[in-house]
Amino acid sequence: MISPIFNDNFRKKFHELLTWRRDVRRFRTDPVDETILDDCLQMACQGPSVGNSQPWRFVRIQNSERRDKLTDYFKAENKKALSDFDGEEAALYARLKLSGLQEAPVQISVFADINTDIGKGLGSKTMPETKIYSVIAAIQILWLALRSHDIGLGWVSILPPEKMAGLLDVDTNWVFVGHLCIGHPEEQADTPELVKEGWQERLPMDRFLLQR
Amino acid sequence: MISPIFNDNFRKKFHELLTWRRDVRRFRTDPVDETILDDCLQMACQGPSVGNSQPWRFVRIQNSERRDKLTDYFKAENKKALSDFDGEEAALYARLKLSGLQEAPVQISVFADINTDIGKGLGSKTMPETKIYSVIAAIQILWLALRSHDIGLGWVSILPPEKMAGLLDVDTNWVFVGHLCIGHPEEQADTPELVKEGWQERLPMDRFLLQR
Repeated sequence: MISPIFNDNFRKKFHELLTWRRDVRRFRTDPVDETILDDCLQMACQGPSVGNSQPWRFVRIQNSERRDKLTDYFKAENKKALSDFDGEEAALYARLKLSGLQEAPVQISVFADINTDIGKGLGSKTMPETKIYSVIAAIQILWLALRSHDIGLGWVSILPPEKMAGLLDVDTNWVFVGHLCIGHPEEQADTPELVKEGWQERLPMDRFLLQR
Repeated sequence: MISPIFNDNFRKKFHELLTWRRDVRRFRTDPVDETILDDCLQMACQGPSVGNSQPWRFVRIQNSERRDKLTDYFKAENKKALSDFDGEEAALYARLKLSGLQEAPVQISVFADINTDIGKGLGSKTMPETKIYSVIAAIQILWLALRSHDIGLGWVSILPPEKMAGLLDVDTNWVFVGHLCIGHPEEQADTPELVKEGWQERLPMDRFLLQR
């Protein structure tokens, strides 16, 4: 196979894809095309993984009782998180919509199978956490692939990791990484909601780059 | 701003980008265009982060003594890792090239500032590890952005995390996430080296997708 050519036009669109990728919390409830979802999950599985260990485990929640339980977990954890803030910050925090657990038509919890035999442990002896990192890379690719189809993804991290394998009846040695709400966004945006709401600005890259 | 349109042509090229993104270990030594590198790091900083905490810290290693020390660390850890394998597997492992620490012109260690005030802790109370996950997402974007310019990235995870902040004279509370070798690859490829070498095949996505 001959290596493809990526030109300025492609790079410009790719940059737009990054600029218009949001952590979506406001979803329409109409379904997502299953073929597109499948294609995007396939692309996620093309992501890099330490020793080619492919430790990503996608658990799609179809059962509405499980989804309700997840919503209960989220509410309980979010209440605890709110108690960290006072005054105006608490008021703003309480106003923020932080999940699409009830609206988004597709709900996928993601785990890392850190004990997988796949890849024979290559590259992860010194830093076993790289198995989890591989799963994050796959999620990031899924996020961009979905966005290229105008589909939004919202990552819910306000959930109790220790309860997730039990709720979803999966191997209790799997590490819960995050829960993804997927669906058509109410609107597309180029600015994060936390920036719009005045919670936290984006800072320039040179602040995060050091020379040694 | 009006949301951009992503068409089939863009999606096809984006899929090619994923297919031809490799964990590169064989680099040419000629320099990378600094403007392109800068642009790609900017794009990485457009990645999602929990509570918009922007916890990514990129530490570019310019000092050759530090690079040599890093190579020593890698060799020591890799020797330990090799001792996990026997017979044919050990012989194959020993043959694999697992880093471009000496050849790649750009060397960047990446850390997560897990105690940053940026974002006021929103979203990371229940799962503090999401700060680290945000850094992984940024690295994945950097990887793809560089590939769109035909530049390769190789992630070295065979390094002692506890020694990295000291070696690079950064905040010892930062979590070392990974070391990136960046440069022009000797060749572009659509197949991972671990697949070519017979270490580990890619497995189909449906094996990693569960319904609950």
